[in-house]
Amino acid sequence: MDDGRWVPDRMSDDTSDNLGEFDLIAAYFRPLTGGRPEALDLKDDAGLLTPPAGCQLVVTTDALVAGQHFLTDADPESLAVKALGVNLSDLAAMGATPAAYTLALSAPKPIPPGWLQTFASGLGDMQTAHGIFLLGGDTVTTSGPLTLSVTALGWVEAGEALRRSGARLGDDLYVSGTIGDAALGLLIARDGRTLAGDDGDEFLRGRYDRPRPRTALGPRLVRIATSCIDVSDGLAADVGHIAKTSGLGAEIGVQDLPLSDAARAALAADPGLLERLVTGGDDYELAFTAPPSAAMAIAQAARESGVPVTRIGAMTAEPDVRMLGPGGATLDLGPGGYRHF
Amino acid sequence: MDDGRWVPDRMSDDTSDNLGEFDLIAAYFRPLTGGRPEALDLKDDAGLLTPPAGCQLVVTTDALVAGQHFLTDADPESLAVKALGVNLSDLAAMGATPAAYTLALSAPKPIPPGWLQTFASGLGDMQTAHGIFLLGGDTVTTSGPLTLSVTALGWVEAGEALRRSGARLGDDLYVSGTIGDAALGLLIARDGRTLAGDDGDEFLRGRYDRPRPRTALGPRLVRIATSCIDVSDGLAADVGHIAKTSGLGAEIGVQDLPLSDAARAALAADPGLLERLVTGGDDYELAFTAPPSAAMAIAQAARESGVPVTRIGAMTAEPDVRMLGPGGATLDLGPGGYRHF
Repeated sequence: MDDGRWVPDRMSDDTSDNLGEFDLIAAYFRPLTGGRPEALDLKDDAGLLTPPAGCQLVVTTDALVAGQHFLTDADPESLAVKALGVNLSDLAAMGATPAAYTLALSAPKPIPPGWLQTFASGLGDMQTAHGIFLLGGDTVTTSGPLTLSVTALGWVEAGEALRRSGARLGDDLYVSGTIGDAALGLLIARDGRTLAGDDGDEFLRGRYDRPRPRTALGPRLVRIATSCIDVSDGLAADVGHIAKTSGLGAEIGVQDLPLSDAARAALAADPGLLERLVTGGDDYELAFTAPPSAAMAIAQAARESGVPVTRIGAMTAEPDVRMLGPGGATLDLGPGGYRHF
Repeated sequence: MDDGRWVPDRMSDDTSDNLGEFDLIAAYFRPLTGGRPEALDLKDDAGLLTPPAGCQLVVTTDALVAGQHFLTDADPESLAVKALGVNLSDLAAMGATPAAYTLALSAPKPIPPGWLQTFASGLGDMQTAHGIFLLGGDTVTTSGPLTLSVTALGWVEAGEALRRSGARLGDDLYVSGTIGDAALGLLIARDGRTLAGDDGDEFLRGRYDRPRPRTALGPRLVRIATSCIDVSDGLAADVGHIAKTSGLGAEIGVQDLPLSDAARAALAADPGLLERLVTGGDDYELAFTAPPSAAMAIAQAARESGVPVTRIGAMTAEPDVRMLGPGGATLDLGPGGYRHF
């Protein structure tokens, strides 16, 4: 019954009724092992990973369903980037260095010509960018929407994983990259809105379609940051997770939020988008806390990783997340905003 | 967009539109972590596992889709047993001791009342039986069929993982448990056939619905077996995988095949079922090879694990898998039989 496992004997079996599909898999997925001995050429019942000395394994599984987590007409390369990206972002948030991943691909038939090639190409690019390889997986047929389930594996020095719950009173609050681009990109892609001109809209949509997990930054925050989370639910919500699990609150200066030029342009044209920027999600940036004394170390981590980092606020004793406007007044961002914590 | 992650802050958020679903998840899945610190109460971006000294990580991912890998009316407890079972069977085949797993559950709405409770109960029973716990996962909504993707993680002494490719000429060929029950069970469940009387049919169907991964036996075969595979594609096909990757062939004595009483009854009534028994798959037994000198060590491993083991043949220089009848004549089992190798 398990027709779709990446078992080469079955894929290359000329008598198989599913020859075409299995050949495609052998052609496009086995190369993604990079010849790493751990993957055993996808020829065995499981893959093997050798732990680096003194490390803990970090494991995350995220599934994406067409129509739920990506648009049904999404291009396969972006899907590959997103499926790996959301998982690698979780590893980065724990301070883990990514090592490998498995993929369960549930695809409706027929798979369009060229789809697997483009999808595998997207996986390959992400692998190169993040130093990972395909360790194993499964590909099955479904009567439903395309579903991608990735399990990403990484390593972190034992006992040093970054957690959500470690923030301390008076810690500074930081975020990487820029915030809100993906939320605007979704408005453009899904609702057909124009927000920041052709180039700006293309940039924003790209930020939605192709998350850039901060795998270079996360491991460099180990022993520096006191807490960390990846911004997937929206900045306000995810800072809320840090605050709540740390038994604290947080203040965020809206003027301090790092925005892309395109997001600034969109916001200038429609100030009402501010709520969307901080609650929209899918940023896949890192939000983290550290004591003020760590400022120089954080700047160095940002430089070394090539990822901009911005201080956007601080942890407070008063619970909940507050967004502070220009004069220090608390902004009420409405449903979806900070009131949810 | 990632509404379904097992993040408690979201599940317990009273303002969530998905309150009911998230509460169910918090109620039924968090307990499956068993309070193990590695799972971080499913409250963080990923789970952590500490490698035992001198071990390699063994990783396998298998996805099950309703209507493809299980009947759409399958009871949720059996689904839980099957989803974990097929993955644990892969770990056993590598000689790995299971440690933990992640689950990506893609479920159509609405989830029937009681479904999650029964499903989680099935997972819990499997966890207890095999010494594992839930390390993390994802639960998402799908417009398609129920899809379960499990990644199972285990540990094996470094360099000692059992492989398919290690069989040597003259090795004995063994199989655990009984063969063909699940294939007959599928005929009963899917096609409504009656094969072995009420009790026999119930037994056979149970063998299809509820695989018993041989996690107690697999690790005990490390340093004893020269190759190992779990029987998922059918005995003939899987022994074929060992033979092919080892550059050998195999002979199997049909009279030596371990059959359950129910399978014997079914075979007595319809001798034509023999082909189905050896090619039907879903046994989730272990097929493995070892030199004749290992016979006593294997008998001891069988005793210690409480899993019967039967010698069914030997590895040969002549390629392909041959089924030998009573007089030593080669049986042609037709399409699906040994000719596929």
